[in-house]
Amino acid sequence: MNRPTRLEHDLLGEREIPSNVYWGIHTLRALENYPITGQSIGSYPELVRALALVKQAAARANHRLGQLDEARYRAIEEACMDVANGRLHGQFVVDVIQGGAGTSTNMNANEVIANLALEKLGWPKGHYQELHPLNHVNMSQSTNDVYPTALKLAVVFAIQGLLDALDILRADFAAKSAEFSDVLKIGRTQLQDAVPMTLGQEFSTYAVMLAEDSKRLREAITLIQEINLGATAIGTGINTDSRYAKMVTEFLADLSGVPLTAAENLIEATQDTGSFVQLSGVLKRIAGKLSKICNDLRLLSSGPQAGFGEINLPERAAGSSIMPGKINPIIPEVVNQIAFEVIGNDITITMASEAGQLQLNAFEPIIGHSLFKSIEHLEAGCRTLAENCVRGITANRELLAERVRTSAGLATALNPYIGYENATWAAREALRSGRTVAELVLEKGLMDQHALDRVLRPEVLTAPIQPE
Amino acid sequence: MNRPTRLEHDLLGEREIPSNVYWGIHTLRALENYPITGQSIGSYPELVRALALVKQAAARANHRLGQLDEARYRAIEEACMDVANGRLHGQFVVDVIQGGAGTSTNMNANEVIANLALEKLGWPKGHYQELHPLNHVNMSQSTNDVYPTALKLAVVFAIQGLLDALDILRADFAAKSAEFSDVLKIGRTQLQDAVPMTLGQEFSTYAVMLAEDSKRLREAITLIQEINLGATAIGTGINTDSRYAKMVTEFLADLSGVPLTAAENLIEATQDTGSFVQLSGVLKRIAGKLSKICNDLRLLSSGPQAGFGEINLPERAAGSSIMPGKINPIIPEVVNQIAFEVIGNDITITMASEAGQLQLNAFEPIIGHSLFKSIEHLEAGCRTLAENCVRGITANRELLAERVRTSAGLATALNPYIGYENATWAAREALRSGRTVAELVLEKGLMDQHALDRVLRPEVLTAPIQPE
Amino acid sequence: MNRPTRLEHDLLGEREIPSNVYWGIHTLRALENYPITGQSIGSYPELVRALALVKQAAARANHRLGQLDEARYRAIEEACMDVANGRLHGQFVVDVIQGGAGTSTNMNANEVIANLALEKLGWPKGHYQELHPLNHVNMSQSTNDVYPTALKLAVVFAIQGLLDALDILRADFAAKSAEFSDVLKIGRTQLQDAVPMTLGQEFSTYAVMLAEDSKRLREAITLIQEINLGATAIGTGINTDSRYAKMVTEFLADLSGVPLTAAENLIEATQDTGSFVQLSGVLKRIAGKLSKICNDLRLLSSGPQAGFGEINLPERAAGSSIMPGKINPIIPEVVNQIAFEVIGNDITITMASEAGQLQLNAFEPIIGHSLFKSIEHLEAGCRTLAENCVRGITANRELLAERVRTSAGLATALNPYIGYENATWAAREALRSGRTVAELVLEKGLMDQHALDRVLRPEVLTAPIQPE
Amino acid sequence: MNRPTRLEHDLLGEREIPSNVYWGIHTLRALENYPITGQSIGSYPELVRALALVKQAAARANHRLGQLDEARYRAIEEACMDVANGRLHGQFVVDVIQGGAGTSTNMNANEVIANLALEKLGWPKGHYQELHPLNHVNMSQSTNDVYPTALKLAVVFAIQGLLDALDILRADFAAKSAEFSDVLKIGRTQLQDAVPMTLGQEFSTYAVMLAEDSKRLREAITLIQEINLGATAIGTGINTDSRYAKMVTEFLADLSGVPLTAAENLIEATQDTGSFVQLSGVLKRIAGKLSKICNDLRLLSSGPQAGFGEINLPERAAGSSIMPGKINPIIPEVVNQIAFEVIGNDITITMASEAGQLQLNAFEPIIGHSLFKSIEHLEAGCRTLAENCVRGITANRELLAERVRTSAGLATALNPYIGYENATWAAREALRSGRTVAELVLEKGLMDQHALDRVLRPEVLTAPIQPE
Repeated sequence: MNRPTRLEHDLLGEREIPSNVYWGIHTLRALENYPITGQSIGSYPELVRALALVKQAAARANHRLGQLDEARYRAIEEACMDVANGRLHGQFVVDVIQGGAGTSTNMNANEVIANLALEKLGWPKGHYQELHPLNHVNMSQSTNDVYPTALKLAVVFAIQGLLDALDILRADFAAKSAEFSDVLKIGRTQLQDAVPMTLGQEFSTYAVMLAEDSKRLREAITLIQEINLGATAIGTGINTDSRYAKMVTEFLADLSGVPLTAAENLIEATQDTGSFVQLSGVLKRIAGKLSKICNDLRLLSSGPQAGFGEINLPERAAGSSIMPGKINPIIPEVVNQIAFEVIGNDITITMASEAGQLQLNAFEPIIGHSLFKSIEHLEAGCRTLAENCVRGITANRELLAERVRTSAGLATALNPYIGYENATWAAREALRSGRTVAELVLEKGLMDQHALDRVLRPEVLTAPIQPE
Repeated sequence: MNRPTRLEHDLLGEREIPSNVYWGIHTLRALENYPITGQSIGSYPELVRALALVKQAAARANHRLGQLDEARYRAIEEACMDVANGRLHGQFVVDVIQGGAGTSTNMNANEVIANLALEKLGWPKGHYQELHPLNHVNMSQSTNDVYPTALKLAVVFAIQGLLDALDILRADFAAKSAEFSDVLKIGRTQLQDAVPMTLGQEFSTYAVMLAEDSKRLREAITLIQEINLGATAIGTGINTDSRYAKMVTEFLADLSGVPLTAAENLIEATQDTGSFVQLSGVLKRIAGKLSKICNDLRLLSSGPQAGFGEINLPERAAGSSIMPGKINPIIPEVVNQIAFEVIGNDITITMASEAGQLQLNAFEPIIGHSLFKSIEHLEAGCRTLAENCVRGITANRELLAERVRTSAGLATALNPYIGYENATWAAREALRSGRTVAELVLEKGLMDQHALDRVLRPEVLTAPIQPE
Repeated sequence: MNRPTRLEHDLLGEREIPSNVYWGIHTLRALENYPITGQSIGSYPELVRALALVKQAAARANHRLGQLDEARYRAIEEACMDVANGRLHGQFVVDVIQGGAGTSTNMNANEVIANLALEKLGWPKGHYQELHPLNHVNMSQSTNDVYPTALKLAVVFAIQGLLDALDILRADFAAKSAEFSDVLKIGRTQLQDAVPMTLGQEFSTYAVMLAEDSKRLREAITLIQEINLGATAIGTGINTDSRYAKMVTEFLADLSGVPLTAAENLIEATQDTGSFVQLSGVLKRIAGKLSKICNDLRLLSSGPQAGFGEINLPERAAGSSIMPGKINPIIPEVVNQIAFEVIGNDITITMASEAGQLQLNAFEPIIGHSLFKSIEHLEAGCRTLAENCVRGITANRELLAERVRTSAGLATALNPYIGYENATWAAREALRSGRTVAELVLEKGLMDQHALDRVLRPEVLTAPIQPE
Repeated sequence: MNRPTRLEHDLLGEREIPSNVYWGIHTLRALENYPITGQSIGSYPELVRALALVKQAAARANHRLGQLDEARYRAIEEACMDVANGRLHGQFVVDVIQGGAGTSTNMNANEVIANLALEKLGWPKGHYQELHPLNHVNMSQSTNDVYPTALKLAVVFAIQGLLDALDILRADFAAKSAEFSDVLKIGRTQLQDAVPMTLGQEFSTYAVMLAEDSKRLREAITLIQEINLGATAIGTGINTDSRYAKMVTEFLADLSGVPLTAAENLIEATQDTGSFVQLSGVLKRIAGKLSKICNDLRLLSSGPQAGFGEINLPERAAGSSIMPGKINPIIPEVVNQIAFEVIGNDITITMASEAGQLQLNAFEPIIGHSLFKSIEHLEAGCRTLAENCVRGITANRELLAERVRTSAGLATALNPYIGYENATWAAREALRSGRTVAELVLEKGLMDQHALDRVLRPEVLTAPIQPE
């Protein structure tokens, strides 16, 4: 029993296509040429949506300029809206890693939209003489402007989720900072005991870092929003009406709700991938910060007995298949690994960008794939870190207080009152003898109890000196 | 309507598990903790198979040492064989990116095997008092020896496919080398015309490179075959019989058909990920070579009119949605992108390895995930490059011959006969005037026709000078 | 014969210091601890200058707040000015790669300035009871605010040179773009002939890229200008007057002429290295672009006979020790290599940044070293590329014109007039037969000479279609 | 007053060269073309020595084959020996980052050796008609075989120092392992307390790691020892006698004492840089291990009060300019930074290798520069780590013993005797109540004192169970 097929042809000849699929011969060849990852572009819904919006905006501009008749325009527009709404993700079957500078992705979209539009017009799939993937759906376009534009728009869509997740995580750290604002502890530099601070101050830095990262990410998005629609093959706009580029950009901004702008030099914009590299650099920065934060959380919660033991992460799973009762910092650990992946992705993106030649960068598919992974995994990491870890952190207040009381690090605070030399003696002697700096200073008559009390208050220890 | 469930408990409390699944409460928590990529460990069949073989080897050793009774041993063994044969890949549901140093992967395996074994014994799933995921399936084991061992074994399995693909590609290049052995051309250094060689010589280098890469890969595998089974928690072998480590390693070697050896120092082996880094370094080397080869293929086939135009890659797809008749080097392009990905993965692996602390590296899951991607995508890249590109390459023989005839680069071959200074004059004059080096040398009486003819034969131009 | 020495002591004991050097015991220990590269911090004059300005600003603030008397203030200020003016670079001897989070660099500065100030006050070097490296020169400071602040200021200084060099290179490309504005050629995508453009358009993209890079670099500088002076040990400002932080920041901005601002959260600012990572990310972006441009220049000038041969790079050296008359693209090649170095440096910086722990990043020295290398080498690369290459590029106008005339790529321009199908025929037939697209189209009566002439004008081929 | 000069000429014209220098016009042009780092190739004495040995071996082969007369041969040989012995490092002035695929380095060597040989023959420098840098010193050679061969040989020389340093560090860790063999402590996985081990076991792993790294490094050297002398321009051996390649390789092996072998396919060997990438991969592996070890040392010595506090690193410098008495882990910190640099260098090398095109890799200079930095800095790092840190480490024996006594981690050791469930109860209860696992187990009657004593002995806790 054979499955029914239809016949399609291209430059290289004729091929049978299963009757029920919306994609056509170009997509079939891509399936044969790129059996790489088994992951199809349909797994990036933002990309499919962006492609549909680009096709819709182009159809509208072509119609407005009198190059596409009303009936075909309406059919294409409806088809694009269906695709944008996710009705046909399963038809976007090309591998996420592909050659051809995205041509297969563009053709997959052209074919799906053409066949869907044909059906809306009452024709069977493949009846391209009525409505053609290239002549009508791809009119005034080239892969070389459609694909980078769709990638950029998709990235803008995807990044909203990351921004939301960053903000959730930031807010959770800020809440913990407030909760721990009265918990005094010993700060550390180079893993060695330094001077007092509050646990609230320690957690506030994480909130500040994430807020700054969000700002940097928003700045990077503005660069991504500059597109090259209308550039066609190499940026000269060959085969387009001179009014088209401006018009299609405005339509796409309108349809997507994203403030897209046209690049000033379309030839440069068609070959340049700098804004992707810059965005990946910011994602790498965020990854590095998240990893640092997770390293800190793992350090501060190390123990429970033979480690720092300052905070407790919520228990999320039995930690060991052999050690009874063991609990591990598994949520920070998964975020660390996402960070390592994002940093690796940045190298992939950097190399792909550097390898562009002359009027086009043929390696944008791997740039897009790597960016989507970085963005999605960072978002997932922020969410699980916020929900399954930060929110449930508790402090070991007694231990922290006792450590401050006995810390040799308090000697630094006495510098201005007893001098660096006496302070050095007090610190070293405290470590040697196990007595407190305060006891030693009192005993030697370097300060009296009243003066000591005034200096050793938390609000004094953790801030500059107020002039009297 | 509720789906039927069973109740399981762990350290943290009780949870309902769908009755039909083989995984249990630890796996459930992992699903909640790590919603990162949507890709489950079941997508790496080699890993699932390796886990099953490790569990089977452990059960056999425990049975031999009198710690596991016959009935449970038989049930576990049968369950492991079913899993190894791929019957239950869908039950390995934990995300490929996970915290906990692989504990969730190990527990997913323990639970699936335990429940399958329970069924074989006639008990319902979850009836762990009869056969327990930890007490019986994980007996004498810890995630910290099971997981790295399974990863290594899985990598050995996976790499066979890459070795096969490298050999296919090597053979295709060798065949082309033979086919082109009589095609003289001008070699290039620094993209500038240099001296003559044959196109066969040019293609032979690719075959040689790939053969060397295979050797390096085989060497790296021998390092990977050193495992730490019996190490348990930190390498001291706590909770194991002193005869266990040697025995289980031999059983696993036997079951898998892989010549595994036990590491000499199990404490070191438990925390060290050096062999993964070394393997990734070799994969990176292979990626770099493949990328270089693809860059060359794209250069040599550039044109068809305004480029090098020396060879033709087979036409695999219409190249452009706007430019009629354009054909692009899409297969080399996809391999370039795989190479960039592998090089990025190497950074991920390097960072994950460096981040290991004290007695364990908690970041092996991302190491494994990155390695599997590198290996699988390189294999796919080699296969599509061989089948869809190299095999169909043809040479533009007339163009190449004409270029040699008129090349100023022939002057180098005359160095020993007319001196460097005269040769420089001939080369520069040939470029300036458009005449051939041979004409100029004859005209100026520097050599006679007979002498020239002897030197300018292909077999003389492309090899050292035979003493007379 | 012994060289005369003086005795100094620290926490660890006494040591003899050569009488003639301005550095002291802390610096001596650093020399013994870090014999790594042989390159001293004095080789970064911007860093030495920045350190001196920081010390001067601190002394001024301390004096203003009544903590440093007039005489010592004046002596320190004069010493700082001498150092800033480069009088004592040879005294900054600590290795550029060092542990201790920059403490040795800070102490090297403290000691040199103290001893110079002592001499100005009429005391011998080492007479620290009168003016002390820590008590006076380092007053209200910690390495943990001084060092990152000085690094940032030094980077701002260094980057001016890179901005200048980028602008010179941009201007040279813009000049070439104007010079070549009438040279028609065939553009290329994926190394395959595409559609016509002018060589001027091609060169204009490089100017545009560099202009954009400069903008991104200026944005990154504004992030770098946020400093943490007044943070002291961990950002709480311990040991400082509460008015100090604002005051010293203003003084430093004033002295340096750089619009520095104080970070809002000094604890965060003391541990965070995100702005360095972001800057390095931008340098990496610039490196990638420069490398791409150099790849293009090498491609376009490949040949002279068997390559693209479209442009000629100026001859800068005999290219070969064996091949007479060979000239190579050596200047682009050196820039490519700088780019690879900068991309590697970015990984170093990223890892150093990620490795920061708790209240401090101890790895800023390698961050600084890597940034200085990236900045300085990129500047040098831009300058040699502008002066020794771009400025002297010439075009092979006849070859380019002939290639356009005979190019099958002209078929794309006829798409709107003869349709995609006829255009495909014309392109394929032109390649097959060696005849021109124009001839074929005329012969088949698809267009008449007049219509063809109108379309095949350069200004029409390289721009969108003007509506009539 | 003018400095005296001599006149030299090349392909591009005439230039004045200072009379006193041994380098000539090609070197002068390189100085003008590559003002990049200010670091000259003379700063790599191994490279200069290797170049001299290559030139000496070539001269000997040319003489043996009757192509170089006795007098010139003797003069060149003596000159090479002088250069190899370091007499003229100051004359190797070309920048370490250079274009031209190493041509400038090769020409610098040719010119210095030629002029030195001329002096030995009684002629003034520049009198090239008697003995020519190209015709005689570079006879039968091309930069494309000389430069990679010299690089490889230089790397083999340089790596001996690293192997020595690795062995010193390994021995120091082994000595500490023996010293601490009786110090029981709690091991850690995922920074959480795990099960007991000895501090000696912990330190032994570092010795084992370094021993393995040395093995991998020696394997990588064998790949580096395969050279392409005799390949000349592109590997076809053009302009050489067919007996030359074998002969010159044997002479070079003999002169250098290094077991060099000739590559089987010289065309492949001339364009391939795989062995450099592989070596860099091994250096990266070593860097990662060293960094991990240093991270561990910093963790284990963290405190002194609020950290792990298990070991003490020797005090090497006052740690802070503000915190009295603070001591920091500065030696591990400097090694961490070297590791980050080496990992960055590996990316540089990987990209440079991937960028090779057709018959040559033009980017070997940056590969060499990066390798030398990695090797030299790793050697320096190992030495300072051994001498200034590891050798002086002491253990806090009382603290470690007390932590073992009270650790909830002991519960794991009781698994086989009281079962996983009871062990979990004991561990959790110990943490909750502050009582010891032993007390709880005794109290609940799970084991008697005698049985407990037998299990809780150090030699039992830290090894598998001996069958009775």
